[in-house]
Amino acid sequence: MYHFLRKKIEQKKALVSIIGLGYVGLPLLIELSKHYETIGYDKDITKINNLKRRKDIKKIVSNNQLQKIKSKFTEKIKDLRNSDVIIITLPTPVNSKNLPNLNGIYQSLKEIITINLKNKLIILESTVYPGASTEFINFLENNTNYKINKDFYFGYTPERINPGDKKNTLRTITRIISGSNEKSLNLVKILYQRFVKKICIAKNIEHAEMAKVIENCQRDINIAFINEIALICDKLNISSYEVLNLASTKWNFLKFSPGLVGGHCIGVDPYYLAYKAKKIGYKSKIILSGRNLNESITNFIAKKINNILKKKHSKILLMGLSYKKDSNDFRNSKSIDLYRKLKKKHDVKVYDPYLNQEILKKIKIDKSIKKLSKSNYDMIVISVDHTKFKKMGIDRIKKIGKKNVLIFDIKNLFPNYSNFSL
Amino acid sequence: MYHFLRKKIEQKKALVSIIGLGYVGLPLLIELSKHYETIGYDKDITKINNLKRRKDIKKIVSNNQLQKIKSKFTEKIKDLRNSDVIIITLPTPVNSKNLPNLNGIYQSLKEIITINLKNKLIILESTVYPGASTEFINFLENNTNYKINKDFYFGYTPERINPGDKKNTLRTITRIISGSNEKSLNLVKILYQRFVKKICIAKNIEHAEMAKVIENCQRDINIAFINEIALICDKLNISSYEVLNLASTKWNFLKFSPGLVGGHCIGVDPYYLAYKAKKIGYKSKIILSGRNLNESITNFIAKKINNILKKKHSKILLMGLSYKKDSNDFRNSKSIDLYRKLKKKHDVKVYDPYLNQEILKKIKIDKSIKKLSKSNYDMIVISVDHTKFKKMGIDRIKKIGKKNVLIFDIKNLFPNYSNFSL
Repeated sequence: MYHFLRKKIEQKKALVSIIGLGYVGLPLLIELSKHYETIGYDKDITKINNLKRRKDIKKIVSNNQLQKIKSKFTEKIKDLRNSDVIIITLPTPVNSKNLPNLNGIYQSLKEIITINLKNKLIILESTVYPGASTEFINFLENNTNYKINKDFYFGYTPERINPGDKKNTLRTITRIISGSNEKSLNLVKILYQRFVKKICIAKNIEHAEMAKVIENCQRDINIAFINEIALICDKLNISSYEVLNLASTKWNFLKFSPGLVGGHCIGVDPYYLAYKAKKIGYKSKIILSGRNLNESITNFIAKKINNILKKKHSKILLMGLSYKKDSNDFRNSKSIDLYRKLKKKHDVKVYDPYLNQEILKKIKIDKSIKKLSKSNYDMIVISVDHTKFKKMGIDRIKKIGKKNVLIFDIKNLFPNYSNFSL
Repeated sequence: MYHFLRKKIEQKKALVSIIGLGYVGLPLLIELSKHYETIGYDKDITKINNLKRRKDIKKIVSNNQLQKIKSKFTEKIKDLRNSDVIIITLPTPVNSKNLPNLNGIYQSLKEIITINLKNKLIILESTVYPGASTEFINFLENNTNYKINKDFYFGYTPERINPGDKKNTLRTITRIISGSNEKSLNLVKILYQRFVKKICIAKNIEHAEMAKVIENCQRDINIAFINEIALICDKLNISSYEVLNLASTKWNFLKFSPGLVGGHCIGVDPYYLAYKAKKIGYKSKIILSGRNLNESITNFIAKKINNILKKKHSKILLMGLSYKKDSNDFRNSKSIDLYRKLKKKHDVKVYDPYLNQEILKKIKIDKSIKKLSKSNYDMIVISVDHTKFKKMGIDRIKKIGKKNVLIFDIKNLFPNYSNFSL
């Protein structure tokens, strides 16, 4: 069976399906469709209907890119039954207790079982804790009569998508690949070499899982460190912006900026690693201290704003709600948390150029304004450093509020011109 | 008085003295001596006598460099009484409770008072917590009748010496400067511009102090993160070396290595910052979590070695004792801690090519060997990644021990060839 599957992939005769058509799955589908017959699968019927008409309302890929590919789109798992390769690119979030929530992955494994696992290569691209893939393989074996590396194959190759980054893309970044055995690894390699420039082979899946999950943990701890410096500077009544600029004149100082750290990667991955560490008897000290500090920043800013404004029911405009700069992704955004905290005491309106009706419904924001227009705001909080805000300039932003409106410029978009920053 | 002092510095007629002739003071003296009449002051009489004969036994600067300069050397503070500028480059260590120990600085301030503070520019280069210079200025004012910015001036310009680094040197690195007022700042600027390529002016001394102290804190937390990853990998039975290599294929992964983190900078500065933070009511979460983890690594390695060797009184050779690679600096070295922990249970010999009699006396190591020669070692622990060890090669190192000697290669100097690593 291996040689047959290998030949199909080599000769571009394999049917490749992708489960999950988001930030990871859609660009992947575009690339694979240039070489293989593909099917894109997602549970979101609206999304599938749009994709069938070659429209991606989230603009992850362009409509033009979609029009060029032949791929099928479906919300029915049975359409994937003839697939040779199934790639899972589902999000791996945390639950309300910040524990890994792998329901999405398990649900799709169950669905794959219903359409017959036999002779398929299953590839996972989602971030997980080390050992998770082994659990998935066990699940597949325990719920079928099939054996790994004999009846089906498993590969793990973590995505490294950086939304908005035009330099480091699916095609240009180095790709870590791993497999349940040498054969699986080979299949993954042949497939991904079609569009990936550089491949790096991991000893086994666990090494690849660990390498992936630590990347964002490192970013998290570095921003947490800078946030802690900002908190100390605040207490010292000195400017963290100035301090970081000075420190950055040293050749090896790492220039991170203070701010709200949420999102579906940096805000989540540390919990995955800490979960696994705890399970094997290691209580993580660094990883969680970073996450906890970053989680606390929203509260710190809300309190600081309350202290500045003193009177209740002040009028606040919150500019920026997505989880990061120039992004239309609002998952796990700390700016949304900030909005919720502030509106308990104040009259808060929110503006983000990347918001739309569909997203507003999902995140349950009622006081969003569609266009920036003058009102008697006591304070304007710039929460995200969108390029559009930078381009507006501080003078135009100040004019939106009442005379002498206070500017809380969390990301220091306008250093030296705002009243407060982190 | 200001204009008179300024003129003297501008016209290279100032007498510049340096207190503390170590890693910071000696190279500084060499540079300043090219432009000014200088005096080097140190309490260590042996050192002064050597320097008078143009010899630096620590090889911080070459004897050739010393022969070229006209500087005087003295261990008598009264010889500094005619100085226009006094630069303090003393170490700022911690005490046994890991609290800042500024005795050295205060002692030299007292000495300066005895020779008359009036009309002098005092410059500090040592790493301190933010606000320390203000305390020093207060001390000088309270113990004399002189007023800052009127009777004397104060500048703070933190050293950024990186021992062993030939690219980033005193002359090439950007220098942060700050002063007690605009005039002090100007004096410091004129003086340092003589030999420093690029100057960066801080708003005030506190910003400069903060910028300096956070640099090594950042390095500490980053190595602590990597050490934590190494501890988790150890529990998972996977290779941290492999995992870090994989992660490093991502464009923005920061490649630090696990290991013992001591020394007089990284091992000390976090305590300074945490001390100040606590004093102003902020309990640091990130900074100390990093330091605590790095401090725990020695114990972890000692325990691991005990577990591996099982029987007591095993014969161990510890290779490398200095605080870092290719360094002859043994202050606050964690390898020395490791030696002390190991020798409680085992028969430990130690070898470091940078050790000499004088240092051995100071650090109280009794079982040092001068040359590597074959013995029936059960284990060889490579604790520091000296280039000399790398050049020896793993085969030659293995031959030093008994047949099948175990190699614990803490810094992964010989990946894939050692039995254990961090």
